[in-house]
Parts: sequence; C-alpha cells; structure tokens
Amino acid sequence: MLNPEVLVQLHHIVGDQGLRTDVLSLQTYGRDWTKIYEPAPSAIALPKSTEQVQAIIQLANQAGFKIVPSGGRTGLSGGAVAAQGEVVVSLERMRHILDFNVQDRSLTCEAGVITAQIQQFAAEQNLFYPVDFAAAGSSQIGGNIATNAGGIKVIRYGLTRQQVLGLEVVTGQGELLKLNHGLVKNATGYDLRHLFIGSEGTLGIITQASLQLIRAPDNLTVLVLGVPAFAALMQVLLRFQANLDLTAFEFFSAEALHYVVQDQGLAKPFATPAPYYALLEFENDSAGREQAALQAFQDGLAQNIVLDGVMSQSQTQAKALWRLRELISETISVYTPYKNDLSVRVSQVAEFLQAVDQLVAERYAAFEVIWYGHIGDGNLHLNILKPATMEKADFFEHCAAVNEQVFALTQSLKGSISAEHGVGLLKRDYLAYSRSPEEIAYMRAMKALFDPNQVLNPGKLLS
Amino acid sequence: MLNPEVLVQLHHIVGDQGLRTDVLSLQTYGRDWTKIYEPAPSAIALPKSTEQVQAIIQLANQAGFKIVPSGGRTGLSGGAVAAQGEVVVSLERMRHILDFNVQDRSLTCEAGVITAQIQQFAAEQNLFYPVDFAAAGSSQIGGNIATNAGGIKVIRYGLTRQQVLGLEVVTGQGELLKLNHGLVKNATGYDLRHLFIGSEGTLGIITQASLQLIRAPDNLTVLVLGVPAFAALMQVLLRFQANLDLTAFEFFSAEALHYVVQDQGLAKPFATPAPYYALLEFENDSAGREQAALQAFQDGLAQNIVLDGVMSQSQTQAKALWRLRELISETISVYTPYKNDLSVRVSQVAEFLQAVDQLVAERYAAFEVIWYGHIGDGNLHLNILKPATMEKADFFEHCAAVNEQVFALTQSLKGSISAEHGVGLLKRDYLAYSRSPEEIAYMRAMKALFDPNQVLNPGKLLS
Repeated sequence: MLNPEVLVQLHHIVGDQGLRTDVLSLQTYGRDWTKIYEPAPSAIALPKSTEQVQAIIQLANQAGFKIVPSGGRTGLSGGAVAAQGEVVVSLERMRHILDFNVQDRSLTCEAGVITAQIQQFAAEQNLFYPVDFAAAGSSQIGGNIATNAGGIKVIRYGLTRQQVLGLEVVTGQGELLKLNHGLVKNATGYDLRHLFIGSEGTLGIITQASLQLIRAPDNLTVLVLGVPAFAALMQVLLRFQANLDLTAFEFFSAEALHYVVQDQGLAKPFATPAPYYALLEFENDSAGREQAALQAFQDGLAQNIVLDGVMSQSQTQAKALWRLRELISETISVYTPYKNDLSVRVSQVAEFLQAVDQLVAERYAAFEVIWYGHIGDGNLHLNILKPATMEKADFFEHCAAVNEQVFALTQSLKGSISAEHGVGLLKRDYLAYSRSPEEIAYMRAMKALFDPNQVLNPGKLLS
Repeated sequence: MLNPEVLVQLHHIVGDQGLRTDVLSLQTYGRDWTKIYEPAPSAIALPKSTEQVQAIIQLANQAGFKIVPSGGRTGLSGGAVAAQGEVVVSLERMRHILDFNVQDRSLTCEAGVITAQIQQFAAEQNLFYPVDFAAAGSSQIGGNIATNAGGIKVIRYGLTRQQVLGLEVVTGQGELLKLNHGLVKNATGYDLRHLFIGSEGTLGIITQASLQLIRAPDNLTVLVLGVPAFAALMQVLLRFQANLDLTAFEFFSAEALHYVVQDQGLAKPFATPAPYYALLEFENDSAGREQAALQAFQDGLAQNIVLDGVMSQSQTQAKALWRLRELISETISVYTPYKNDLSVRVSQVAEFLQAVDQLVAERYAAFEVIWYGHIGDGNLHLNILKPATMEKADFFEHCAAVNEQVFALTQSLKGSISAEHGVGLLKRDYLAYSRSPEEIAYMRAMKALFDPNQVLNPGKLLS
C-alpha cells in the first residue's frame, strides 16, 4: 500500500477533488472492460493539468510508487488494469477542447476528451473525425492514441496514428515533450510522436493532442450482402474496391446475425439465408458511384459470390444496417465471450479464416464460435461463447490452451496476435508470436530510456 | 583511408562488381544534390542482397570504418555526402520488385528501386503510388523512406510514411529487423518501423519495403489561379477545400513564373498579371465536382481573392499547367539558389510568408527571392538567387547569416526548419530551432541504441 506521506503529497498536487481512495472508486478505476483481473489500486489521482500530471510522475519517481494511466478504460487487454497497489492517474478531468483552427482543420484538446465528443465537435464544424468503434462513447482520445485505436473506418481513413498532428507527453521520468506542434511536414529527425502512439502508457502519459479533421463524407450508403463462403468475401471486396473508395468493409457470420436478430429484435437484412455477411459503405456522392456499386452487386450475383443483398436508401436505413454489425459485441457480451483480435494481410484472410475455423471446430467442438470483424483491413474478431453450464475459470483455461495454436497459426502467416486491442496484460506473454526477440529487446531498451524507474504501467506490454 | 585488409574483406563480401575505388566513382557516389560539400569517400560498396548489407555493417563494426548509406543521392541537405573517408554503401544494385499482391494492393521491393519505377509499376496494375516530387526519376524508395519524402500530393495522400506497410532494416549494429510484415493493423507494442522512417540512414539501412498502393485517381484536373496577396492564397485554399478533396495545392510567385516562361519557353497561364499563383488539382470524376470547382472560382473572383484563372480541359493541358510549377526548381538551379525548406501550420502560412518576405527584403536587398511550395500543407521553399557577379562562397556565407533569423522566425511560430529535405549535414547545427533539448537527447540515446559504434552516417542529423 501507499505510504501515507505520499498520499499527503499527492493530495497537495491534485487537491480534494483530485484524489480518491474510497472502495467504489478503487474498484471502478482499477479495471477496464477486460474484466478478468481483480482491481487493487492504492489511490486514484485525477489531475486537472499537464503540470499536475508531471508533478505526479516526478513524485512517483522519488517515492517509488507505480502509476497506471487511465482513460475511458474500455480496453480489452487489461492495459488499464491496476491490480498491484498502483496509483491510477485518470485523465477524465482533463477534458477540454482547447483550440480549433478552420484553416488547419485541426483541433487541440486535452487527453481526457471522449472520442464521441471529438466526432461531435468535428460534425458541428462540418468536418469529420474518422476514427470510430464500439467504445467511442466512453473511450478517451488519450487512450485512443496510446493504443492507436482502429475500428470500422480504417480501410478508408487509417488508424488513430494518421490523425495525430501533435502530442504533448510527460515521459516516465517526468519530462514534458511537445512533439511536432501540429505540423503536416517536419523532417527534423526521429519522429518520437510515433513511438508514443500505441505505447499503451508505458513510455509516457499523453496529456494533449492535436488532431487532423477531414472533409465530412457525403451521403454514406451501406450495402449488406449475403456471401456463400470465406473466399467469396474477399472476391467481393476486390470487385467493389476496383471502382469505389470503400469507407468500410465489415463481415459477420450467420451466427453473429442470429444473436443480434434474436436478442436485439432487429430485422434480418433479407430473407435469403447466407453463412456470411459483408457490410460495405461508400460515399454515394454522384450517380456514377451508385451505378458502380449496383454494377458490382450484379456482377457478384452473376459470379455466385453474392447470394442476396440490400442497399440503404436513406441515412435511417444506413444506420439500421450498421446496427446489425455494431451490436454484435454488446449482444454476445452476456454470453461471456473469449475474445481474440487477430490480423493478417488481406490476401491471407480467406486462408486464415478457414484454418482457424477448422482448428476451433476441432478444439472447441462443444463451444459456439462467433466471427466478425474489419475484414477489409485484415482484422478478425474471433469470439468463443461460454456454455451456460461451464464454470468461467474452466472456460478461460480451456480457451487459453487453444490460444497458443491460434497464435502459432497467426505467426505462420506473419500476422498480428493483437490487431487493435493492444497487448496490456492479456497478450503480454504471447508478444513473441508477433515480434522478434531483437524487436522485443529494443522495446525494452526504449522503455528503459523513457521510464528508467519503471514507474508507468509496470508489467503491461513487457514483463 | 581504408585499411587495405578491410578492402579485401569488403571485396570478399560484394565481389568484383560490388566494389569501386576509382576516382570517378568516388566523386559520383560521394555527393548528393546539395553540392556544397567536397566528396571524399574511401570506397563504394554495392551489395546485391540484404545479407551483403548485413555483412558490410558487421564488418564496419569490427574494423571501425564508417558507412554512408546511399540511394539516388537527390537529397538537398547533404545526408548522402561522404566527405570523411567513409565507405558509401549504394543500394542501386538492389532494384527488384519482389512481390505484388492485388488483394492487398501492396508491393514489396528492394530499397534501390527508383521512385518513378514504383509509380509506373502501380499504373500498370491500374493502381497508384501517390508520393511524387521533382526527383522521382532518380531517387530510390529506400532514400524516400529514410527521409520520409513528401512532395506535391501530401495534402491528399500524406507523406511516404503513410504508404509504408512493412520494412526490412539492418541496424547499425548489424541486426536484421523485419518490421510489421505488411499488416494494416498490428497493435503489438512500439512501432519501430516509424522510428526508421525519416531517420536519414543514421539508425539502420533499409533493404526492403512493402508499400501500400491505392486506387488510381480519375481525370485529374488542374486549375491555375492568379492571386493578389499571400492572405488571399489561403482564403482560396479554404474556399476550394470546402467542397473538394484537393490532390494538390501549390503556389509560386510571379518571379518564379517569370523564370520558367523566360528560360523554358512556356506560355503564361493567362494574360492578367498577378503577384502570386496557385495551382490546384482535383479528381474531376463527376459533373458535381467540376461544378463545385467552377463555383469556387466564381466566388473567388467575386470576393477579389482570385484575379484570373484557367482550368485544364484535357490531360495534356493538365500536364502543361503542372510544368509551370514543376520546372521552377530545375530552372533556377543555374542561378545557384540558396534553398530553404520551411513549414508552419497552414493557418500560419500567410503571416509567416509576410514576415519572411520582409526580413529577406531587408537583409537580402540586393538578391532576388523566388518563392514556391506546397502551400496546402504549410511547406514553403524559399530560394535566394546568387547575383551573377558574386562569389559563391561570399554568397553562401551571407545567406547563412540571414538563415538564423529566418529560423528564429520559424521557431517563433513552432514551425519546421526542414519540412521535407531532412537535416543531414546542412541543417544539423540548426536542429534546436525545431526540436527541444530533451527531444535531441532522446534522439542521441536512440542513435546509441541502434548504432552504438556510430558506424552509420556519422555526423549527419546529430553532431
């Protein structure tokens, strides 16, 4: 536990409103959406400024306590879990949008701003913040950057990395770095900004960010297609991409659809049954585009790579179709899914899906498997549902055993064992499936440089 | 000079065709387009494989010689200059495109492939490699990545960084790293790939890269507009961007136009004189887009932010208009320009241009100043022409003195003293105008990690 003197010093930095040690707060701030770790932080600090963040980190270096940086805690790999008496440093009181510039189309904000607020703010300026995913309503931009959040529009707009024009970071040794100052072009040496993006709070705490906003897309139109096989899914992607800049290309299995239809009372997109579904989105901003989409659809039917389909005729319909995909994660969460977040190159997806499906069918014969994901960028979410009668611990143990085989398969295709969920605690011991010993050694050396006393997020990402 | 025994060992690695020590080769491979440094390498090694690159770097670590990695040597900051008896390692014999995958829309190639070849290869697949700039015909992809090359399409497609899906690198201590394996999504720890991008050959030698290709743009259409003032240029940008995704927004001054018209025999875009010109490009892929461009033009005329203009009606006309901008650098090169490559945020460009212009008018009263650049991303090229009667040395000395004031002004706006030309030798001693002491200290620590014996590109970027 924390030395009481240290608590007094922390209180001195953040004040009454900035320090919590009550049981409910410790429980709440000590966990993220991963849920399998028991929270046990010593205290929760809620700084109001970069200076306070800096003072806390400097104090941690002097006093020897550990820090878990905390955003919206929507992570799925335990990156924000505090289970070892750490001080959680929550950025939630640093939630101001500080600046917007219409000529730069850029926004500068504190790290605690909620992702959806940034999307909303951009929309109010007739602009667009393109990073979007299920947790956008509660995740914070600092966490998005620290995990290089991806989501459903990556195929068109890239990951969070692509939007970050500038970063303010306090390193593990308490220095303040202001990186890149919102510039588009800056060829003055190593771009440290990109080292902090995706570093999961292990090198520094992000306190501010400048983000690039872009032109708002026009008349986004959604198609949902029934597809007969994995391989056909990829042919559909290729066919549509030839003439359209897709803004999304998602997929889900008939089983996934079954759950959202049954549990959420949604209508099926069409009556024809299909083992897999693709959800495509594009900017329908000219007659030519709609024509190209319809032609690709007709071609798909003719080639038997599409079984049936529907295209949204209004924004309301587009939203309704999106719900078929977006509600999957929430819907199946009550069935205690064991989640895997894998990626391979797009060209390997069909082969990979088939191989994993076979492996899972053999090893999880008794379990239900739900597939969905951002297939247009090679990212697959594999969810194994816990049988109602099985103990949680038994279930997870069983899943973990199969995991290694799934990861070995991923490795054989040079894929990623964590496409967008990060490493945190959950994937830490599997890191070598996606990174070489030399890379991991360099990562350790970086950690030692920026956080020599191992103050920040100890045990996360690297053991 | 190189120990003769070491030369024998080098010869053993690269063979007869891979080693040159003749005077012409030493002169040729020892310099880049910067021209102000006297080349003096010891030898030129031309490896044929990653294994040979690795063997050379390992030998350098053992034998103690220094290496200058060498691409197309089109750099303008002396990054590829070998003036201290180094061994130049040229990648020009590693020029194979190794793989193309139509589903991934990605290409894997050796680092010595010429940029224009990649553009050409992409075009043959009906795809597009969007990084383009004056030196595309001789620069190599390895050098592009090592300097994070920018150019004329950054406003729409980003810098080289954005296209790099994977990298193979040999570090300064001779390890082989294979980074990211061509994946779109990979959240497994620190992304070392981004550290090597823009590191100017000081951390490792890039031997292979996987690049993302994209949909080829459709019917690119060019407008050249006459504009009455700096401030109006930025208003024009804002007006056009509101309804169009511009693929380029360039500018040049009347003086720049004067030179290309006079020396290259090009026609003026229109008779109306203007102090500044904007060149805009967009995908004219529907009647609505052309209408939006014409409406913005009309609005510009009505608001007096546009004086006159012309829009290409064919690809031939589009190319002809581009030549007005593209030939500036080559045209003025005979007047021995002193080049500056500066960037600020787009919103600061008007203020910055005005301030630099005033400074230059005061301090370079006798000199002619040529402005042009990629103004849509905040990047300005400031060129001071040498008076015919002045000695080169006197001229450069005078320019360097004014430099510091230009850089101080850049710093005051948190801009970059090298937007896309890199640091190399030329900007090395000015790095602190754009990077903080803490950042520079971390950069030195990175250098020590990846290249502990300071074998790679010594004296470049960091002193």
